[in-house]
Amino acid sequence: MRHPLLEELVAKHRPDTKDGKVADYISALSRQDPSLLGIATVTPNQKVMYGGDAPTVSFTLQSISKVISLVLALMDHGEETVFSQVGMEPTGDPFNSLYKLEMMSPPKPLNPMINAGAMVVSSLVKGSGVEDRVGRLLDLVRAMADNPEIEVDEEVFRSEYETAHRNRSIAYFLKEYDQIDDVEETLQVYVRQCAIRVTCEDLARIGLSLAQYGRSVTGEQIIPQSIARLVKTFMVTCGMYNASGEFAIRVGIPAKSGVSGGILASVPGKMGIGIFSPALDDKGNSRAGVRLLQSLSQAWQLSIF
Amino acid sequence: MRHPLLEELVAKHRPDTKDGKVADYISALSRQDPSLLGIATVTPNQKVMYGGDAPTVSFTLQSISKVISLVLALMDHGEETVFSQVGMEPTGDPFNSLYKLEMMSPPKPLNPMINAGAMVVSSLVKGSGVEDRVGRLLDLVRAMADNPEIEVDEEVFRSEYETAHRNRSIAYFLKEYDQIDDVEETLQVYVRQCAIRVTCEDLARIGLSLAQYGRSVTGEQIIPQSIARLVKTFMVTCGMYNASGEFAIRVGIPAKSGVSGGILASVPGKMGIGIFSPALDDKGNSRAGVRLLQSLSQAWQLSIF
Amino acid sequence: MRHPLLEELVAKHRPDTKDGKVADYISALSRQDPSLLGIATVTPNQKVMYGGDAPTVSFTLQSISKVISLVLALMDHGEETVFSQVGMEPTGDPFNSLYKLEMMSPPKPLNPMINAGAMVVSSLVKGSGVEDRVGRLLDLVRAMADNPEIEVDEEVFRSEYETAHRNRSIAYFLKEYDQIDDVEETLQVYVRQCAIRVTCEDLARIGLSLAQYGRSVTGEQIIPQSIARLVKTFMVTCGMYNASGEFAIRVGIPAKSGVSGGILASVPGKMGIGIFSPALDDKGNSRAGVRLLQSLSQAWQLSIF
Amino acid sequence: MRHPLLEELVAKHRPDTKDGKVADYISALSRQDPSLLGIATVTPNQKVMYGGDAPTVSFTLQSISKVISLVLALMDHGEETVFSQVGMEPTGDPFNSLYKLEMMSPPKPLNPMINAGAMVVSSLVKGSGVEDRVGRLLDLVRAMADNPEIEVDEEVFRSEYETAHRNRSIAYFLKEYDQIDDVEETLQVYVRQCAIRVTCEDLARIGLSLAQYGRSVTGEQIIPQSIARLVKTFMVTCGMYNASGEFAIRVGIPAKSGVSGGILASVPGKMGIGIFSPALDDKGNSRAGVRLLQSLSQAWQLSIF
Repeated sequence: MRHPLLEELVAKHRPDTKDGKVADYISALSRQDPSLLGIATVTPNQKVMYGGDAPTVSFTLQSISKVISLVLALMDHGEETVFSQVGMEPTGDPFNSLYKLEMMSPPKPLNPMINAGAMVVSSLVKGSGVEDRVGRLLDLVRAMADNPEIEVDEEVFRSEYETAHRNRSIAYFLKEYDQIDDVEETLQVYVRQCAIRVTCEDLARIGLSLAQYGRSVTGEQIIPQSIARLVKTFMVTCGMYNASGEFAIRVGIPAKSGVSGGILASVPGKMGIGIFSPALDDKGNSRAGVRLLQSLSQAWQLSIF
Repeated sequence: MRHPLLEELVAKHRPDTKDGKVADYISALSRQDPSLLGIATVTPNQKVMYGGDAPTVSFTLQSISKVISLVLALMDHGEETVFSQVGMEPTGDPFNSLYKLEMMSPPKPLNPMINAGAMVVSSLVKGSGVEDRVGRLLDLVRAMADNPEIEVDEEVFRSEYETAHRNRSIAYFLKEYDQIDDVEETLQVYVRQCAIRVTCEDLARIGLSLAQYGRSVTGEQIIPQSIARLVKTFMVTCGMYNASGEFAIRVGIPAKSGVSGGILASVPGKMGIGIFSPALDDKGNSRAGVRLLQSLSQAWQLSIF
Repeated sequence: MRHPLLEELVAKHRPDTKDGKVADYISALSRQDPSLLGIATVTPNQKVMYGGDAPTVSFTLQSISKVISLVLALMDHGEETVFSQVGMEPTGDPFNSLYKLEMMSPPKPLNPMINAGAMVVSSLVKGSGVEDRVGRLLDLVRAMADNPEIEVDEEVFRSEYETAHRNRSIAYFLKEYDQIDDVEETLQVYVRQCAIRVTCEDLARIGLSLAQYGRSVTGEQIIPQSIARLVKTFMVTCGMYNASGEFAIRVGIPAKSGVSGGILASVPGKMGIGIFSPALDDKGNSRAGVRLLQSLSQAWQLSIF
Repeated sequence: MRHPLLEELVAKHRPDTKDGKVADYISALSRQDPSLLGIATVTPNQKVMYGGDAPTVSFTLQSISKVISLVLALMDHGEETVFSQVGMEPTGDPFNSLYKLEMMSPPKPLNPMINAGAMVVSSLVKGSGVEDRVGRLLDLVRAMADNPEIEVDEEVFRSEYETAHRNRSIAYFLKEYDQIDDVEETLQVYVRQCAIRVTCEDLARIGLSLAQYGRSVTGEQIIPQSIARLVKTFMVTCGMYNASGEFAIRVGIPAKSGVSGGILASVPGKMGIGIFSPALDDKGNSRAGVRLLQSLSQAWQLSIF
């Protein structure tokens, strides 16, 4: 159902899309229409509200998938194992940075939301081979979104995989210290999880399942409560790349962005939100998407602080 | 009033004090008894509860004062001016680090909770001279704590001022780029605010005034609501030095620690908490204090996530 | 011919081999006898002198090959092209460091003696395919050493290639900025040049051809004079990893070391020197080899300073 | 005596002064005429040759003084003590960088030619108080230059001392680790040694005394041979800031520059050279001065490589 306030806010922030730039280093992403802007929200009563282009657009998860793989790795191994291999601290560095790793001996990625940490996490997802492991990630995404149709976009996958030089560099760096076992398999899993295609409504339902402490929209406890709480914390401290601090102050909602232009947001106890607008700011977050969420947070008093 | 659960948790975590070490680089701090552990809580109905040594100990704010000076600088100048001079992003680096500053041109401290950022903030507190500016900081602390007796501990001030080589190094670094005007005056203000002496109950009331969005225990709106919200966000993303991420996950309460062993915590809408235990972990946070707060957060479900 | 002083110095410094450690991260190297120590010198009159194990040992070039590939890339493309892609400055960082690259935009390896720079240089060596390019490097080594028998040790190559994670990480990092075209081909060339097997006498003759400003022992001008001078400069400023400064002070001879334990030294106008002793110090230089060369430099007044 | 080749080279390189910029961060330096260019050379037979403005200009040593204070500290304490407090390695970082220090525990300046290392060295110069220590430095400069008239320019000293924020920052950083005892006294000595005023001829004679392994123009052994050799090594590996590598390749002469535009050069066994031209390149070296020295090195075959 279209919601008047959401429509109004989309109209207000549509011009902000002009201040951003579509990611151009992944060819499959670079062809997206920069003026798109859509939002979906879903509340515990399962009511879905739309604004703007939400009903008609789909996009790939990209870094938003780091939240999913973290959930699954934690369910597979528990906190202790996962956090023995990746840290919990935010970092003021770009998501693809290597130098803090170089300063440590042995290196340990600072958190699961930067690429180094996310690849270690992906390498922890259980399964026999790439297909099985990606299948398990897909199953979780489908359960959280209550949508069995969700698939990997193979074209986006191939486009990214061919040019994943920096991620391959990071992965081989970690391999030297045995922090990743099979680099190419890990990259296959990681780039595929990034290429999972969703809609704003899917994201909103995923956000709600975290907001409901692991219960999906259908009421099933698909993720342990403690893990749902934990990933929301990471979304606050490092979900929006190295603009997470400012986002926490201006918006105050646990959220995770991807370079496709998607934003997953989860208001504890209250609501899941999915946003899409592919024109990015210089930190890699959706320009209009962030501002739309800020306006919504103020209008509906959604800040957790 | 002593509270059974608080007493029980103090008893449970008193042994943790043995895992920590009293800060030894400030001689006035190094003489503290490492086995001390106390907690005070205060709720909107003004009921104060104690556990352990809370009623009998006092200590200096140290880095906790960064919250106070940030509030005052924001009240003096507004967000735009303050954040043109200091950033909003957490950093994976130690509190006294210089190298991220060196990488930027011009340097801008990443956030107001690291020393570089805190000194810039202190330099922004209005007033004619050191005495006037420290007086204004004291007035704010007293109002937030509803305690007109709070004072600067001059002995601690002198001890720290004489050995403030690293902070002086940071301040002169910033001076080169005109980000601090008068280095020695700024240091005088900064080190004095660190030496403000409080009790656990004072901290709890300060925490409550932030938890009540700027209203003190007496109900007066002493801080604008938006500023009270903003500083709590910083407390989550960077209040516990470079262990803030882990603290957010394990405890989930906006908090700020100091090397004296104090912790100021503020549970939005619910409660202010003051803790003291001078034996520190290797990140500079009170060892037993953090664990006590974690147990309390679980027992009373205080996490914001 | 065995030389009394060389024998004496070998005897004096043989015990120093106990202070070092054979490189263990390359399995083919880790099996070397740590107590070996040999030296060969050759003067413009072609007289070869030996000390210690020189006549009986052979070893792979490893980083010493960076001198050879730099010579060939300069002969293939000229200074301007080569130094548009790699810098001329020494660095205080380890040879496999990435972080200075990350600080630059676009990254440019600081010099051709660190791994990042050496791989860019190897990618510049002309030839159609790995075999041809390695063949050209081998031809140059054979001409400089006046020894057509010199070959690549395929076992060492395979052993290193399989575990070249860090170099692969560096190469993919550079690939992202188009500074290396074909990563796997470059690695094949680079690791093969490292696995060229030589003797102390080979190294001494190679050193003499540089000392004679590009003329080999047979008198042929196989390298342009300006290039022979240029690579000796790099040997002084960055030939001994991040111990080059100390080596310049203590020894004062252009030299290049490898983790196999070899040292190539070239005394301008006077002499070529080849040393082998596989027990390394913590910077990756031959422990006894460096000390032997220091004693020899003092005895024969070989410092260029 | 004016020398035709020197005059010719000055004429050739005078236009290069337009590519540079006079240092503007020290007000006393910013007023220098950017078009000045002068050179003096002196050979063991004491014959002094001039070119350009050499006979009429004077200027302050600035970083060239780091060579003098290193000589004196080595004469005062010996190599072992000095190099326990400052390293011998070149660094790819700017002269006023702090971040490598921060990475070490405890920090040790990488070499005596960067500011951090030079201040540690100045703090080692013996003497009772600033005046005595500066007096001893002046005595050494006068002996090396065979010119008892050389003095500190007090106006330049005061101008630099007032704005020495970055050096003060570095000094307090080192003070925290007890690597400098009295910060303000060390800064007084350091900034005064930078303000010693000389001519091109003075520099040439200083260079000759190093070229003659410590014997001054008058034949007196004023510096031990080993120390004269040692400082020339530093001049090659780190004498020209972070352009030292390129300078070694292009020019091949031990040299030390200062931001005043002076260059001290010393050709082992052959010649001392003093150059002045205040327009600097972006690394802080005299633009025309470096090019003039490069032309002279080629013309007279002065490279040590």
